Amino acid sequence: LLLGYEESGSAGCAQVRLGLKYDSKEKRFSVYVMQLANCGTLALPPDQNVYVRVVVLPCSETTHCLFRTRGFPSHDSVEPNEVFGVQLSHTALRQKTLRLDVCTAGKSGREECLAGAQISLADVDYSGERRTKWYNLLNYMYMPEMDSK
Amino acid sequence: LLLGYEESGSAGCAQVRLGLKYDSKEKRFSVYVMQLANCGTLALPPDQNVYVRVVVLPCSETTHCLFRTRGFPSHDSVEPNEVFGVQLSHTALRQKTLRLDVCTAGKSGREECLAGAQISLADVDYSGERRTKWYNLLNYMYMPEMDSK
Repeated sequence: LLLGYEESGSAGCAQVRLGLKYDSKEKRFSVYVMQLANCGTLALPPDQNVYVRVVVLPCSETTHCLFRTRGFPSHDSVEPNEVFGVQLSHTALRQKTLRLDVCTAGKSGREECLAGAQISLADVDYSGERRTKWYNLLNYMYMPEMDSK
Repeated sequence: LLLGYEESGSAGCAQVRLGLKYDSKEKRFSVYVMQLANCGTLALPPDQNVYVRVVVLPCSETTHCLFRTRGFPSHDSVEPNEVFGVQLSHTALRQKTLRLDVCTAGKSGREECLAGAQISLADVDYSGERRTKWYNLLNYMYMPEMDSK
């Protein structure tokens, strides 16, 4: 069910530094995708660019809620420094979950996501200040299969 | 790609109340699965029990890191009040991600998970106090497909 994992600690784990901000005057939620670190642990394909996909879920049909950064060569540390915004009330925002994935577009053009973070926005701050934090990215290799025992 | 979602706000979203605690003396991380709320929004099968699956990932082969609560009839609010513990150093813990899923075992015995939360433990508190919070559960129905555009 679960793959083995060398718990040496030295390799660290892939992380993403995100800034989250809600501006209650403009009713705008902003996601700053600042930096990826320890990408080496993700075993990214060396000949392909990686990018970060950001989704605010659940998504209403009339809202733009899916974003992608530009692509980067798969170095160990990547600094997209891109910001994405979604227009919604604070009440609606608090029912959302932010998903963030590190993906590549393979030769076939299919999107393959290797690792991700998922952040509940139930207690998102509405002071208008940007809260910046490092989040661990979970490598999908280590995920238990969703529909099997 | 993304399914539509009625942004009425009145339905709310499924949530789980979790307590997280790290005891640095005992080197023990505890997850308290306290309560599920608004389960009605998950469209749980009425004739099946639901339970919560807890995984601390990545998982080393020698550690027990996958747990399940007992099953409950799928009411709107469920209070498992169960606690699970994992033995590990604070350094190792900070590289982990906690996944929590609401699942049912169908007639075939296959585990089907309907919604989940994923919590980065990068900044987990080590004061020994239990931190209790509500987290939104993301319904997998709303997830973008992982490997498609």
